[in-house]
Amino acid sequence: MSHIKELIRNIEDLAANLFGKDFLLTWDKSEPELKQVLTVAEALETLYRANRSARCFESGLAISNFRDQSTRTRFSFASAANLLGLTVQDLDEAKSQIAHGETVRETANMISFLTEVIGIRDDMYLGAGHTYMLEVAEALDDGFQQGVLAQRPAIVNLQCDVDHPTQSMADLLWLQEYFGGLENLKGKKIAMTWAYSPSYGKPLSVPQGIIGLMTRFGMDVVLAHPEKYDLIPDVVEVAKKNAADSGGRFTHVHSMDEAFQDADIVYPKSWAPYEVMGERTELLKAGDRAGLAELEQQALARNAEHKDWTCTEDRMKQTRDGKALYMHCLPADISGVSCQEGEVEASVFERYRIDTYKEASKKPFIIAAMILTSRMQNPAALLKGLLKRDTIRKME
Amino acid sequence: MSHIKELIRNIEDLAANLFGKDFLLTWDKSEPELKQVLTVAEALETLYRANRSARCFESGLAISNFRDQSTRTRFSFASAANLLGLTVQDLDEAKSQIAHGETVRETANMISFLTEVIGIRDDMYLGAGHTYMLEVAEALDDGFQQGVLAQRPAIVNLQCDVDHPTQSMADLLWLQEYFGGLENLKGKKIAMTWAYSPSYGKPLSVPQGIIGLMTRFGMDVVLAHPEKYDLIPDVVEVAKKNAADSGGRFTHVHSMDEAFQDADIVYPKSWAPYEVMGERTELLKAGDRAGLAELEQQALARNAEHKDWTCTEDRMKQTRDGKALYMHCLPADISGVSCQEGEVEASVFERYRIDTYKEASKKPFIIAAMILTSRMQNPAALLKGLLKRDTIRKME
Amino acid sequence: MSHIKELIRNIEDLAANLFGKDFLLTWDKSEPELKQVLTVAEALETLYRANRSARCFESGLAISNFRDQSTRTRFSFASAANLLGLTVQDLDEAKSQIAHGETVRETANMISFLTEVIGIRDDMYLGAGHTYMLEVAEALDDGFQQGVLAQRPAIVNLQCDVDHPTQSMADLLWLQEYFGGLENLKGKKIAMTWAYSPSYGKPLSVPQGIIGLMTRFGMDVVLAHPEKYDLIPDVVEVAKKNAADSGGRFTHVHSMDEAFQDADIVYPKSWAPYEVMGERTELLKAGDRAGLAELEQQALARNAEHKDWTCTEDRMKQTRDGKALYMHCLPADISGVSCQEGEVEASVFERYRIDTYKEASKKPFIIAAMILTSRMQNPAALLKGLLKRDTIRKME
Repeated sequence: MSHIKELIRNIEDLAANLFGKDFLLTWDKSEPELKQVLTVAEALETLYRANRSARCFESGLAISNFRDQSTRTRFSFASAANLLGLTVQDLDEAKSQIAHGETVRETANMISFLTEVIGIRDDMYLGAGHTYMLEVAEALDDGFQQGVLAQRPAIVNLQCDVDHPTQSMADLLWLQEYFGGLENLKGKKIAMTWAYSPSYGKPLSVPQGIIGLMTRFGMDVVLAHPEKYDLIPDVVEVAKKNAADSGGRFTHVHSMDEAFQDADIVYPKSWAPYEVMGERTELLKAGDRAGLAELEQQALARNAEHKDWTCTEDRMKQTRDGKALYMHCLPADISGVSCQEGEVEASVFERYRIDTYKEASKKPFIIAAMILTSRMQNPAALLKGLLKRDTIRKME
Repeated sequence: MSHIKELIRNIEDLAANLFGKDFLLTWDKSEPELKQVLTVAEALETLYRANRSARCFESGLAISNFRDQSTRTRFSFASAANLLGLTVQDLDEAKSQIAHGETVRETANMISFLTEVIGIRDDMYLGAGHTYMLEVAEALDDGFQQGVLAQRPAIVNLQCDVDHPTQSMADLLWLQEYFGGLENLKGKKIAMTWAYSPSYGKPLSVPQGIIGLMTRFGMDVVLAHPEKYDLIPDVVEVAKKNAADSGGRFTHVHSMDEAFQDADIVYPKSWAPYEVMGERTELLKAGDRAGLAELEQQALARNAEHKDWTCTEDRMKQTRDGKALYMHCLPADISGVSCQEGEVEASVFERYRIDTYKEASKKPFIIAAMILTSRMQNPAALLKGLLKRDTIRKME
Repeated sequence: MSHIKELIRNIEDLAANLFGKDFLLTWDKSEPELKQVLTVAEALETLYRANRSARCFESGLAISNFRDQSTRTRFSFASAANLLGLTVQDLDEAKSQIAHGETVRETANMISFLTEVIGIRDDMYLGAGHTYMLEVAEALDDGFQQGVLAQRPAIVNLQCDVDHPTQSMADLLWLQEYFGGLENLKGKKIAMTWAYSPSYGKPLSVPQGIIGLMTRFGMDVVLAHPEKYDLIPDVVEVAKKNAADSGGRFTHVHSMDEAFQDADIVYPKSWAPYEVMGERTELLKAGDRAGLAELEQQALARNAEHKDWTCTEDRMKQTRDGKALYMHCLPADISGVSCQEGEVEASVFERYRIDTYKEASKKPFIIAAMILTSRMQNPAALLKGLLKRDTIRKME
C-alpha cells in the first residue's frame, strides 16, 4: 500500500482540476489533468488488488446510454460504477418514451435527479455523437443552474464520432505499465495504421483517439493508411499541434511498411474512410437503403484492394528488434480465426493476445478515475480518506 | 438539518399507519397518511441535498414491472430504490417464462423471496391495471401468510388505468413547495383540463389522479373536457365526495375558457375518452387489428374537432393575474415543437419549462417515501436513526 | 441465532473445500462439499429471517448469462448476488458484440476484470451447455494465471444440458427441511417420473439432476418413463454408481404406477427423449426449419400416446399412506389450468402448491451458498464474522 501513498503524493503535485467537468475529448484536457486520471486509475487498481474497498458513494446512479452495441465498454462502465458504489441504470431508448417526442434537453434532466454520471456511446454517425454529448451537457448545465438538479452529473464519453477517450487513456495506462513509466514513452515510435477487414463502416474514433493522445507525451506517432482512408482532418491537425507542443513527432504516411519500420508499438486496425462515413451518415439520415447497400458494396470493394495492409510476421520483423508491442482495442479481425483475411495474422495475435487482454483490463479503472476526478473536488484527499477508512472489499 | 427535525416532529404528530400496506390509490389513504408520505419525501430530499445517506437497506430487491413504455417513472423508481439501498430487478415479461403458462399468483411469489417492493405500471387497458395489482397483492398475501415469503413486499402503483399516485403525489409536493405549504392550497383553483393532441389513446390516470387527490385538500378543482371525453365515472364521484369532505369544491365543465378563468393552476393534458378506451380494450383483447385501426381513425378525427382546446397565451391571460402555474406530467405535446398543433403553445411551455422539470424532480422522493412508509413500522424513528447515523452519501 | 452457531459448528466439522472452484455438476462434488453448501444456505436463510445482513462484498459484479428464457432462476441469481453485496450485470448477447466474431475465450476475460461470479444458463442443445461452461472456465483459468484477472471468478451452472444443480440442491434443501434432516432421507422412496405435457423439447437436466443428486444420500430413487424417453446414458450410470456408494437404491422402470407405489416423494415432470434432443440439436445447428417442424410433430404425436402418464389423485393414493410429497421445479403443466391435459391433476397441484413455492424459495439461498463457498476460503469463519459484525439488514 506504500505505492498508493506515492501515487497520492504525485496527484497532489499536479496542477489539475477536473472537478465538475465532463470527459469528452482528451485534447480538451491539460497534461496534468490527463496524468491525474492515469494516476487515480493506478491507485484504484492498486486498492482493488489489495482487496480494499474504493466505495465512495453510498447511493447514486450511473446512467449508461449506449446508442450502439458494446460488450467491453458496457462492462467496463458497469465495473467502474460498481467499484465506486454507483448503480448502473440503462437508458434503453427502445424501452423509453424518447421516440415519442421528448427532446434531448428534457430527457437529460428527467434521468438526472439522483445521478452522478452519464456514460454515452454514440459513434454511428459522423458529426452526431460529439454534438449529442454537448447537447446533453448544455441541458444538464441549464437544469443545474436553474435548481432542477441537486448536482450536475458528469458526462463520460464512452466513444463518439471524434474521440474514444476511455480507450485511448486505457491504452496509455497500459503503455505506461508496459514501458515502466510515462517518461519512458518519449521518443518511442507508435504506428497507428489502417488494416484490412472484411467488414465496413468501423468508426474512426479509435485511430483519432490514439493520434490525438499519444502525441501529447513526446511519442513519435506515425499514422498510416491507404489513400482515401483519411480521418477527420481537424483531428489530424490536433495531432500535429500536440506533437509540436510536446516535443514529439507526428508523421502521416501511406505505407504500412514505413509505419512498422523500427516501431516500438504497432496498432493495426481497420476503419472506414472519413468520406465514406460522411456519405453513409447522409444516406442513413435519408433512410436510403438502396444507396446504403451500394455504398457498402463500393466500400468493401475498395477495402479489398488493400488486403495486403495486414499485420504479418514479416512486418513484425521490421519493427524495433522485431519485438514491437502489438495493440488492439478488440475484437480484432484475425486471419483464419474470426475471418478469412483480416487485420492480423493469427500467430502474431496469439503471441500478443494476453497483452491485448491486459490492455483492455485498464479500462474499468480509467473510467472509474474519470468519474472520481469529475465528482470529487480533491481526488488526492479522497484517496487518503479511502486509505484511512481501510475497508475490506471482500470479507474473508 | 434543523428543518428535518421539524419534519420528523410533524410526522410524529400524524395519526398515520402505512406500514405493510400497498400504495395503489390515493383515495384509499387517509389525509394524515398522505401527509406522512409528503413529509417523508421532503425529509428524504433534504437529506439528499445535505449529502447525507438515506440508505436503510443493506440488501433487498425492488422489482419493476413495466407493462408499458416509460422513461421518467422507470428512472424515478430506480432512483428511489437506490436511495434507500435496494437494487432494481426488472421483471421483463419478454425475457421471462411468464408467457409460458405461469400464473400471476405463481410469478408474484417466485420473484419475491428477497424482495421489499414491487413497482407496477399497467395502464394500457381499462379495467385491467388496477385489477392486476390487486391480484398480485392477493398472491403476495397468500405467500406471506403461508410462510413462503419471509416478508410481504409492498406494491407501489406506478400508473394503472384508474390512478397515477406517484405522479399526483409528486405534483402535490411540488404545489406545496411552490405555494409555501399545504394549507396555502385551500381555495386555490386548479383547472384539470383536456387538451388537443395529435396522438390517441393517452391514459386517463393522470387527470383521474389529479381530481382524486387535489380535492382532498380544500382546493377548487375544475375538470374540463369536450363532450364525450369523460373519465371513469366512479373516479369523478370520488372527486365530488372528496371535495365535499375537505371543504373544497369540484366543478365539471365543458369549456376550457371557463376552467382557466381566474385559475391559480392549470393542467392542460390530453386523454382518450373513457368510452373509446373501453372499446379499444375490447378490440385489443379480441386482437381485432382492423377494428383498432378504424377506432384510431375515428378517435383522431374526433380529437381534431377540438384543436382549439389548447393552452395559449391568450388563455393564460384569463388566469389569476395572468400568472397561473402551468403543470404537466411530461412529455407535453408542444405546438410547433414536438408536433404541429398540440396541448400547449410553445412560448407558454418554455416559460414554465423549468417548473415542469421541478415538478418531475419530486417523483423519486415521493416513490422513496412510499417505499419507506410501507416497509418501516415507524418512519419518524427511522429518520431519526438516519440523522443520528449521519453517514455521508458522497465522500469528499 | 443460536441455531446459526450450531450450523457453523457443523460446517467446521466438514472436510470440504469448494474455494476457487466452479459449481457445474453435483457429482463432481464430495458429500461433505454438498453438505457445506446446504448448511451455508440454511445459515444464510436464518440470517435473512433474523433481519441480519449477509453482505460480504463491498463491491463486485455477478454476471448472468442466460442463453435461454428464465424467470425464477434469473430472480434467484439476482437475489443471491444482492444478498451478498454483488451487483448483477446481464451479459445480453443480443446487445453485445459477441455475434461479431468475439470468441468465448476473449469475452470471458473481457467481462471478468472486476467480477466474482458468472452464472450461466445454457440448456438448449444436448452436448453444448456443459461444454460451453468448461470453455469459459478454461478461459478464466488462462486469464487468471497469466495475470489478466486479479481474481478468478467462479462459474455457477444455472442449468445446462447435463445437470441443474441449483434446482436439485434447492430441492434437497427443501427435502431436508420437510423431513427434518438429511439423515431422515435415508431409505425414502422418491419417484422421478416422466409426465405428459402438450409442449415438446423440455430439457433433461431436471430429472438428470435429481437422479444424480438424490442417489448420494441413501434414498431409494426410481426413475420412470415410457420406452424411448431415455435420459443421457452417462448420467444414468452416475446415478447407479451413486446409489451403490451411498447405500441407497436406483431403479429404472417404465411404469408410472410402479414408481408411485409406496413413494414418499413424487416428482412427475415432462422431458424430451434424449434421442429427440440429439436430433433437434443437429437440426438446429443445420438451421433445418422443415426438419425441426417435422420432428416437433413426431415428438408431439409420440407424447400424445402417453397422456396417461399424469399425476392423478388415484395415483397419489398409491403412494406412502396416500401422502407422498409432490415436487416440481415449476411451472407445471396443470390439467385444466395451464393446459387441457398435462403433468398433474389440478386438485393434486393445488394441495401441494404452497409446498412447491417453498421448494422454489430455497434456490436464492442455495445459489448464494454456492457463491460464498467458492469465493471465501473459510465459510465457517466468514459466517462467524457476519455474526460478530451483526449488521441489521433493514433498519427499523
